[in-house]
Amino acid sequence: MSLSDCRVIELPKIADARGNLTFVEGGNHIPFDIKRVYYLYDVPGGADRGEHAHKALHQFVICMSGSFDMVLDDGFETQRFHLNRSYFGVYVCPMMWRYLDNFSSGSVCMVMASAPYDESDYIRDRAEFISAVAAS
Amino acid sequence: MSLSDCRVIELPKIADARGNLTFVEGGNHIPFDIKRVYYLYDVPGGADRGEHAHKALHQFVICMSGSFDMVLDDGFETQRFHLNRSYFGVYVCPMMWRYLDNFSSGSVCMVMASAPYDESDYIRDRAEFISAVAAS
Repeated sequence: MSLSDCRVIELPKIADARGNLTFVEGGNHIPFDIKRVYYLYDVPGGADRGEHAHKALHQFVICMSGSFDMVLDDGFETQRFHLNRSYFGVYVCPMMWRYLDNFSSGSVCMVMASAPYDESDYIRDRAEFISAVAAS
Repeated sequence: MSLSDCRVIELPKIADARGNLTFVEGGNHIPFDIKRVYYLYDVPGGADRGEHAHKALHQFVICMSGSFDMVLDDGFETQRFHLNRSYFGVYVCPMMWRYLDNFSSGSVCMVMASAPYDESDYIRDRAEFISAVAAS
């Protein structure tokens, strides 16, 4: 899949003076069922994370607090997303090399994923990723 | 169901100097599949939310940032939970009156739910809730 299959999705926001509420339903607001939710926290300001790709996993990435950048790379081109609002998220399709950087202190990154954890779905070597893209 | 069916669940925490990671798989760490995720943010310090019960919905509540309290009430007894760590969550079974209060400024409350939004699943009137408990 290519970078053009990834996209920013604006989520519903129910505004209320007692706090705002945003919701995400699997198969409705995002194009997959939610099998796993994970989140990164206690990230030191300026840290970077996540140099890898997934063979088959679909993901949806939201900045729940603070801000960070996510760079997506399909082997041909790259795009940098600055995430700093919890009612926007980025849909990340399979076979997309990604890394996160520019974390603000106290930021929280939440990811919804289409499958349980499976180490065999990871591509952690950049050269292997480029070979797999070329073979597809 | 009664208050004894609700419980604090400690989630996996993968500690890393570049930030910690916690994950939740539906049907594994929590006793239901995740059909919907919603979150409360921009809650003013000291605000309160959520005076209602659900007839059939299962939920899992996590404090993603800051802190807040959740009070659960099965119609006979109540329990107050103070949430301030993102690797702990509270499983909330159906037919549990709940409210959230004591929000710290900048806190984020995330909820995983067993079904898409359905207004007919809500009980928003306390007297109606007590009647339903008595009839069960």
